[in-house]
Amino acid sequence: MEIRSGCPINLSVEVLGDRWSLVVLRDMMFGNFRTYRELHGNSLEGIATNILAARLRHLEAEGFISAAADPSHKQRTIYSLTEKAIALVPVMVALGSWGVRYQPADPTFAARSIALERGGAAMAEAFMAELRHLHLGAPAPARSVLAELNAAYETAVAERG
Amino acid sequence: MEIRSGCPINLSVEVLGDRWSLVVLRDMMFGNFRTYRELHGNSLEGIATNILAARLRHLEAEGFISAAADPSHKQRTIYSLTEKAIALVPVMVALGSWGVRYQPADPTFAARSIALERGGAAMAEAFMAELRHLHLGAPAPARSVLAELNAAYETAVAERG
Repeated sequence: MEIRSGCPINLSVEVLGDRWSLVVLRDMMFGNFRTYRELHGNSLEGIATNILAARLRHLEAEGFISAAADPSHKQRTIYSLTEKAIALVPVMVALGSWGVRYQPADPTFAARSIALERGGAAMAEAFMAELRHLHLGAPAPARSVLAELNAAYETAVAERG
Repeated sequence: MEIRSGCPINLSVEVLGDRWSLVVLRDMMFGNFRTYRELHGNSLEGIATNILAARLRHLEAEGFISAAADPSHKQRTIYSLTEKAIALVPVMVALGSWGVRYQPADPTFAARSIALERGGAAMAEAFMAELRHLHLGAPAPARSVLAELNAAYETAVAERG
């Protein structure tokens, strides 16, 4: 890919500035969806199969995800986030906070973003540590941010009634 | 525009997930380029005229910028950032920090992102206050983050020699 400029914001937009890459990474981060079937079957946005396949190829080529055969089912590919993708947690937090305020976000889906905003830098760091455990084989951290985020979501669902 | 889902991250990607919108907003924020001519003439990435015109229409339709006739030159349009766009400063900071670490950023262009990362939340708040002054007529704040960022850039240029 031809690089338009060496500005770091531009460089980020060059690899992530499309309609789906960040959404696929979101599903791997927050939903822990790791296979093509999980990513397609659980897509809130109903991602089309050809678009998902193309985005996975792009994310792998750009070093955001790695692919490995499932040891228990060799024809199945398991995708893992790389450190480069895990380092996007602050970008996801900032996009989520902004979306909650300025776009017509659904209150139940907004609950995770609101919890992450309230948790600040310590929660973002703990989330990255948990993702390194789930995707890169690092030791399990004591704190599970995913469990906290899912609890926030369940609370919001219950409050909506 | 049809909304794919109410997830706040998805909603942010729906309006900003393209190759140019964030880059045009970056130029208005960090370069204070306010006219079509300034945005085209100073584009690091050499944005094409038709793409710039289309992105400005999109950003205006989505409420990120407002357009007004220049009082001193009626045929010229001056664009201003709205609060919705100024609130993207934390997204820009996060994208810049990530780009500095994981993409081949030019050290001189990286200087502003590094300064913003070091400055933390207080610097981001001061930058938003300055943008509200420049774009929305709010009182001038005591601190000029744009001056600090330009000084960081000039220092990096001098260090490169």
